[in-house]
Amino acid sequence: MPDNRVLYEILQQVRDGALDPAAAEQLIGSLPVGTIANLDIGRTDRCGIPEVILAEGKDIDSLVKIMHSYACATGRAIASRILPEQVQAILATLPQGIIADYREIGHILILSDGTMPEPSGGTVAIVTAGTSDIRVAEEARIIAEEMGAAVLTAYDVGVAGIHRLFPALERLKTADIYVVCAGREGTLPSVVAGLVNKPVIGVPVSTGYGYMGQGEAALAAMLQSCAAVTVVNIDAGFTAGIVAARTVALIGRNS
Amino acid sequence: MPDNRVLYEILQQVRDGALDPAAAEQLIGSLPVGTIANLDIGRTDRCGIPEVILAEGKDIDSLVKIMHSYACATGRAIASRILPEQVQAILATLPQGIIADYREIGHILILSDGTMPEPSGGTVAIVTAGTSDIRVAEEARIIAEEMGAAVLTAYDVGVAGIHRLFPALERLKTADIYVVCAGREGTLPSVVAGLVNKPVIGVPVSTGYGYMGQGEAALAAMLQSCAAVTVVNIDAGFTAGIVAARTVALIGRNS
Amino acid sequence: MPDNRVLYEILQQVRDGALDPAAAEQLIGSLPVGTIANLDIGRTDRCGIPEVILAEGKDIDSLVKIMHSYACATGRAIASRILPEQVQAILATLPQGIIADYREIGHILILSDGTMPEPSGGTVAIVTAGTSDIRVAEEARIIAEEMGAAVLTAYDVGVAGIHRLFPALERLKTADIYVVCAGREGTLPSVVAGLVNKPVIGVPVSTGYGYMGQGEAALAAMLQSCAAVTVVNIDAGFTAGIVAARTVALIGRNS
Amino acid sequence: MPDNRVLYEILQQVRDGALDPAAAEQLIGSLPVGTIANLDIGRTDRCGIPEVILAEGKDIDSLVKIMHSYACATGRAIASRILPEQVQAILATLPQGIIADYREIGHILILSDGTMPEPSGGTVAIVTAGTSDIRVAEEARIIAEEMGAAVLTAYDVGVAGIHRLFPALERLKTADIYVVCAGREGTLPSVVAGLVNKPVIGVPVSTGYGYMGQGEAALAAMLQSCAAVTVVNIDAGFTAGIVAARTVALIGRNS
Amino acid sequence: MPDNRVLYEILQQVRDGALDPAAAEQLIGSLPVGTIANLDIGRTDRCGIPEVILAEGKDIDSLVKIMHSYACATGRAIASRILPEQVQAILATLPQGIIADYREIGHILILSDGTMPEPSGGTVAIVTAGTSDIRVAEEARIIAEEMGAAVLTAYDVGVAGIHRLFPALERLKTADIYVVCAGREGTLPSVVAGLVNKPVIGVPVSTGYGYMGQGEAALAAMLQSCAAVTVVNIDAGFTAGIVAARTVALIGRNS
Amino acid sequence: MPDNRVLYEILQQVRDGALDPAAAEQLIGSLPVGTIANLDIGRTDRCGIPEVILAEGKDIDSLVKIMHSYACATGRAIASRILPEQVQAILATLPQGIIADYREIGHILILSDGTMPEPSGGTVAIVTAGTSDIRVAEEARIIAEEMGAAVLTAYDVGVAGIHRLFPALERLKTADIYVVCAGREGTLPSVVAGLVNKPVIGVPVSTGYGYMGQGEAALAAMLQSCAAVTVVNIDAGFTAGIVAARTVALIGRNS
Amino acid sequence: MPDNRVLYEILQQVRDGALDPAAAEQLIGSLPVGTIANLDIGRTDRCGIPEVILAEGKDIDSLVKIMHSYACATGRAIASRILPEQVQAILATLPQGIIADYREIGHILILSDGTMPEPSGGTVAIVTAGTSDIRVAEEARIIAEEMGAAVLTAYDVGVAGIHRLFPALERLKTADIYVVCAGREGTLPSVVAGLVNKPVIGVPVSTGYGYMGQGEAALAAMLQSCAAVTVVNIDAGFTAGIVAARTVALIGRNS
Amino acid sequence: MPDNRVLYEILQQVRDGALDPAAAEQLIGSLPVGTIANLDIGRTDRCGIPEVILAEGKDIDSLVKIMHSYACATGRAIASRILPEQVQAILATLPQGIIADYREIGHILILSDGTMPEPSGGTVAIVTAGTSDIRVAEEARIIAEEMGAAVLTAYDVGVAGIHRLFPALERLKTADIYVVCAGREGTLPSVVAGLVNKPVIGVPVSTGYGYMGQGEAALAAMLQSCAAVTVVNIDAGFTAGIVAARTVALIGRNS
Repeated sequence: MPDNRVLYEILQQVRDGALDPAAAEQLIGSLPVGTIANLDIGRTDRCGIPEVILAEGKDIDSLVKIMHSYACATGRAIASRILPEQVQAILATLPQGIIADYREIGHILILSDGTMPEPSGGTVAIVTAGTSDIRVAEEARIIAEEMGAAVLTAYDVGVAGIHRLFPALERLKTADIYVVCAGREGTLPSVVAGLVNKPVIGVPVSTGYGYMGQGEAALAAMLQSCAAVTVVNIDAGFTAGIVAARTVALIGRNS
Repeated sequence: MPDNRVLYEILQQVRDGALDPAAAEQLIGSLPVGTIANLDIGRTDRCGIPEVILAEGKDIDSLVKIMHSYACATGRAIASRILPEQVQAILATLPQGIIADYREIGHILILSDGTMPEPSGGTVAIVTAGTSDIRVAEEARIIAEEMGAAVLTAYDVGVAGIHRLFPALERLKTADIYVVCAGREGTLPSVVAGLVNKPVIGVPVSTGYGYMGQGEAALAAMLQSCAAVTVVNIDAGFTAGIVAARTVALIGRNS
Repeated sequence: MPDNRVLYEILQQVRDGALDPAAAEQLIGSLPVGTIANLDIGRTDRCGIPEVILAEGKDIDSLVKIMHSYACATGRAIASRILPEQVQAILATLPQGIIADYREIGHILILSDGTMPEPSGGTVAIVTAGTSDIRVAEEARIIAEEMGAAVLTAYDVGVAGIHRLFPALERLKTADIYVVCAGREGTLPSVVAGLVNKPVIGVPVSTGYGYMGQGEAALAAMLQSCAAVTVVNIDAGFTAGIVAARTVALIGRNS
Repeated sequence: MPDNRVLYEILQQVRDGALDPAAAEQLIGSLPVGTIANLDIGRTDRCGIPEVILAEGKDIDSLVKIMHSYACATGRAIASRILPEQVQAILATLPQGIIADYREIGHILILSDGTMPEPSGGTVAIVTAGTSDIRVAEEARIIAEEMGAAVLTAYDVGVAGIHRLFPALERLKTADIYVVCAGREGTLPSVVAGLVNKPVIGVPVSTGYGYMGQGEAALAAMLQSCAAVTVVNIDAGFTAGIVAARTVALIGRNS
Repeated sequence: MPDNRVLYEILQQVRDGALDPAAAEQLIGSLPVGTIANLDIGRTDRCGIPEVILAEGKDIDSLVKIMHSYACATGRAIASRILPEQVQAILATLPQGIIADYREIGHILILSDGTMPEPSGGTVAIVTAGTSDIRVAEEARIIAEEMGAAVLTAYDVGVAGIHRLFPALERLKTADIYVVCAGREGTLPSVVAGLVNKPVIGVPVSTGYGYMGQGEAALAAMLQSCAAVTVVNIDAGFTAGIVAARTVALIGRNS
Repeated sequence: MPDNRVLYEILQQVRDGALDPAAAEQLIGSLPVGTIANLDIGRTDRCGIPEVILAEGKDIDSLVKIMHSYACATGRAIASRILPEQVQAILATLPQGIIADYREIGHILILSDGTMPEPSGGTVAIVTAGTSDIRVAEEARIIAEEMGAAVLTAYDVGVAGIHRLFPALERLKTADIYVVCAGREGTLPSVVAGLVNKPVIGVPVSTGYGYMGQGEAALAAMLQSCAAVTVVNIDAGFTAGIVAARTVALIGRNS
Repeated sequence: MPDNRVLYEILQQVRDGALDPAAAEQLIGSLPVGTIANLDIGRTDRCGIPEVILAEGKDIDSLVKIMHSYACATGRAIASRILPEQVQAILATLPQGIIADYREIGHILILSDGTMPEPSGGTVAIVTAGTSDIRVAEEARIIAEEMGAAVLTAYDVGVAGIHRLFPALERLKTADIYVVCAGREGTLPSVVAGLVNKPVIGVPVSTGYGYMGQGEAALAAMLQSCAAVTVVNIDAGFTAGIVAARTVALIGRNS
Repeated sequence: MPDNRVLYEILQQVRDGALDPAAAEQLIGSLPVGTIANLDIGRTDRCGIPEVILAEGKDIDSLVKIMHSYACATGRAIASRILPEQVQAILATLPQGIIADYREIGHILILSDGTMPEPSGGTVAIVTAGTSDIRVAEEARIIAEEMGAAVLTAYDVGVAGIHRLFPALERLKTADIYVVCAGREGTLPSVVAGLVNKPVIGVPVSTGYGYMGQGEAALAAMLQSCAAVTVVNIDAGFTAGIVAARTVALIGRNS
């Protein structure tokens, strides 16, 4: 890891008399904190998460600048919850050597230098209860794939017609973790967690109406679930995708 | 119905000159409103619901007086959410000819003159997800039976072990309506409503903990249910029992 | 029921040696779960509810495809909370032999092959407190009629001018169940439930303003009602219509 | 008014040379603000409300001291929401010449020098939906009487048995204002306001259970009422009593 | 009152043999309930409130029809929360003999036959904390004037510059009741109620932002006020105006 | 799996003529649904979760019976949120051959036949912000260990003294997943998730006071976290423990 | 201060016989309350806050009038949360001698006579977690500068990349108070307060989505913070700026 | 600062060859993060706050151990929200040389080695609206004094009798910051902030009842205040005391 090298080199220079202890103290103090205090934690790929920008609520100029900078600096930049006009502005001035990939349903734009994510060695299943949940599921799928996970999907298999669920689960049975997106009463993650013995992440979706109809009922039901489910924020497909990818990466790392 | 007779007799007396129109006007104005304005609505058994007293929050003296009065006047008085000390006080001064029946699990006390409710001609199924929901289910069962409904029950058949549900539903298949009690995430009413083609009433139960854990999550999930479920207040087994009994009474009435 | 036949035929083929037990096991495992495990529950008309699509929040392309598929496959498809532009898109490419019926006030579009619902043998009364509640009431009326119920309506008879209510109830007195829609303080269902001895479903409507003015106050009041009322989600005329139709179907079934 | 006199005397002393303008400026600045700036507003009986102490949450020593001080200083002190042990402590050391009047149901203790409130010239009607609301109604009644209002009451006339309401309203028809206390769904104030053409104050009461069952549903319903009702805090019989008394005092003042 | 006459005439016809008792029973049953059961309550001017239509959320066609009907039938119709396009539609087809008066700030349209409200004999003071509260205050003012109250106003005298309040209260000191409109933290009604000994109605206004910034904080503060204030729904100037007018009408009636 | 065998045997009997197809149909219909429809899903160890009873809210008699039954039938029974008196009752009648293990801090009682859980092959780190969070963390630890996970803990290393966190994380660096328990503002899971590249489960704890002080603020902060965290219900150490154990089991399974 | 002089002159005139005590009493009563009762409190610069108008929700005509009046009368007027069209209208009729300064990011318009605020002698640090928080931070910065504070800023240094924070704090280390703006989970103020020993004001920002995603989670987390933070309303950069400026003014005043 | 010295010495040892660079890297990595990365931030007195333990919710054994450890290690330990039985246990085993000071009203226990806090050079005013707010105010006072601030108090001067406020503010006029505690509608901080030009911290207190009566209304009103107030959590006198002390310390530091 280069970070280690920076500190090590400073120390070597002190030893070699090339650097004064006081100056070294100054230098070390100016490094990013993670770098120093926790050597094996603060490595460049500290969290293994590609830089993702929440485009929603950002003005276009700032967003263009941020996306282009990240893409050029790291070879990869992802914007979530991006609007068409934001996409257009970014594409209009795309830096040379940067490729844009716009996933309309998931409202995600990926800029990259053309390199592909390295496979991490596990499989994420992404399931939705209805068709309205797909936009959130796609957010999860894209980020998980960007982090190197293999992804299987089964959309629109909700409990209203529970017979659609069983063959879907059969098809997904090689998955190591399940991301289950559901709005309204948010039952599906509980049902899935009762049928598989893998981790299940519930993603409440803001489809519904009336009382607690913006995903709150789904969130509450998932939190109260008798089955073993962990939950992310309403519509947070993105967060679910990251955690799922991190989870399946455990397998590659340990195998 | 005597109410009709009262009005009719007034009118006859006017016709016969025994009563002055002005005096009759006065008299009619002093009658209970339902009596007059809506002759077929305002009958004694207007709503077919036995008088039920919410004991919770009532001081003992008032409760004893109310229960004894109703029991003596109408031959029947029911107290719900009654505490043991309230029961004791009522039993201690039980009027002659009145029989007390204390249903401990449902926290209900029934005073009666020994007559039994007349069968209404239909069957109510009462289902609970867990054992903690039984106290609420019993409230529903007792009031439904008091109103003449036949009741079948299947307790502790929740979705955590969904395989317990199917044989239960098979056993309940002659029911005309389902009252389904569930706490935590409140999924069971939705599942039942997806499997039967009879009316389903969801009863959210205040079992759970943490976020919306006093039945609110269950209430929200039932209201947001994709399946066709109607809902009552949290722990309102009593209300569900009345509506279920009213519903099955339609069958007896129409057959 | 054809479902039964499928299983029965598999079993006969096994008996006749035409099918290997292992292959049969495989086949049975691949059938929809309701089909097999609960023979009398999993029948085609399992829930007696026509397929209804919540158009709100669906993109136009998906909606058109779903509606046309259902209509062609089953002879009937209903979209609720549909927007004019969604209607237009569906009508523009209406498959041959499919008839469209757009109910503007209830925001419902019905596609059918021209067959009419079979009468189920009971009567639903639909009542509204104000004129703003009619759009929700119409949703209930249309779905109930689609399920074969006879429907009587009395709109704008709320408690502000309670004298309008009594003749309305008189006119509706042959109804077997009442669906009562009300916004603001949501009193009307309680009042109706105190005057009739039939089941009453309260539908809170999102008319109002200020504190809990999007139907929440009405919902809360109906849930807390001293009268025996069951409740559906805010604006969920659709759910109320289904449950009401299911309820009155009990009569036809039992008579 | 003595306050005026203080200022007037200061001014006279300045005129007489007995007081330096600078010293007078100092003195005036140190007077209570109401005294000076708004002469006709800041009079002793500024608001016509007897001093009432919220006993709830106060430690006994402080409460005893406050009550005795007020009683001795002004001839009258009222404690609301008082607990039996607080009452005992106050009675145990009752100052000479002070009479105690403990109203158990309303949880109010009145200390006085024996003088009676002067009649203000109007009539307040206090109505409750159920028996559980009486403790709150009594709070309203006592404070209204303390402020000189005549009070008529009709308790337990709620809409569940709406026929009990009409004769009650007939009996109360000389009232100038109605204070209507109701828990659960809080319908009664709206109904009363639709039947009388006098001001109506709704008092939500914390009787109920489940969802919004501590008076919140009643509060919401009263605020959303289509009828013309003003509302006070949950269980705030005390506030309703003051406003009602102030209102009927308008009549005495203007007649 | 004609209602009385209807009943009286029925009774006379029975006496005269012109009407059969059974037919009379039928007839009486078909009359509006208020008419009969509560003779002195159910009079035409039962509540003294002009018919006011909440225009918000109504479709234009219905609104035009309702407004014109009421105006023609009763000589007066008021629409609150009306939008410019709704006003235009109503004016475009104004029935002959009907005069329209559009109060833009208060979003109110008054149709009338040119008659003026009869003075009721008391004075309402309407006060606002800021300029943003004026639209709500105007709603209160217009309806109060329509009901015959004299109205004094003091706008933009909130506690941020409390020195503006005192001369305002001095100017309003002949008022019999105060309607005080305030958004944000909603302090002004409490302050006014602490300075006058007349009834005060607090109107929370939906001006503010952030946490409970749509009037909820103001509502909560008014309900929790230590001073004697009654409260109406957020932005419900209309309700406050009615209650204030009813209150001052007590004076005229009793003097 | 025996389940398969049952179905297979039925089919074989049909083939052999020992069973009539109609009788077989009946038999198959009576089996648990998971058994048949989804052969590889419905296996005995379907979810790999030991049976855990939520003792809270259960009456003692039922609890004793349930615990003893499970322990005898499956060799293992766990009760969470158990009270001392419930423990005593269970111990008083402990069946022969059953060993009880009471974990006081975690409020968990484990009954077993003495067998130990089989190691699953991964490591769970459990971290708490403060000492008050330990009771919840222990719940997670015990269930994770019961499911065969190795567990490392670091308690009381919250962000108030963030310097305590870094050496703790260093010590935990072999963990495959982090369960982080925090009350008050619930920051710790976010901080941890920003420093490690493994999955992090946040457990909001009900320590705190005032506004959203029962864990709601912590829950909200974890759901809104910019870092990749999944969340469970407030105080749901138990759920977090299951999911963590399921996650690390992936490693054993795949290595 | 002229206010003092007014009262003093009145008193002198009384002493000189030029004014009758009764007339003086009248005069004093008509003065603004602050003027008299609290001489050293009621000074013109009572609170040291420039007049700031919340433009949001104000109609353009009123706003133009208010801004121009204040600017002309006091030499300074500030509008916050101003819309572009409101700015245009104000600029279109700018009074002579008034200079306009529109800060687009902070949505603030400052009108002045060209004078600059007098330096107050301390330094405010304004910090944001992300770029979306800058609009709120700018509001704080502008008002603080208007009140004479020196301001240092460090934007986009949130805990997601906590290594950015440390050098930022180093750069801000001369600050006397920290205003820290953060949305989502609102962690940054707590972290800063744990690292500095100066007062910290947390400003929750309405950036986020889903559950409590309009700044509520951030508000809750800041209120529950274990670190010593005071909080303002969501997005209330303006309030934070005033308090920060008042705080640093203590230094100038005391040095 | 000793921390600096540790790092400096490590570096010197490397220079002197006494320590290998690799070993030094290891050593540096094991130091607390604040120590190294932010030399001038991570000093021992980093935040100037005495260690305070929230006793509420802690079991007695842990609490005793924590308090005694801190007291012995640092010469000072403070427990807030402490119960009498917790105090007793701590006093029963008080380590030698440690003095206990129990402030009953504020529910605070201070252990110390007898040294007094060093005066910080400024004055905090603590004000309460009522007597019920004093327990919270005392918490603020004690911690502020512990941090070296001079404290002035004015209790029970709320706006209900606003005339009590003005002389109180006069008496407090030398204060540099105001901590204002108020329950119910929480008006007092706003009023004070409108009358002084110093920073004001509002402390909502959980005195009240009914709707938002546990301090929520006060919190909301303070957050919505038009005046410049910062706010702490409900009942968080402790936090307010720290921030106030930090604020007045600016004066000592800068003078």
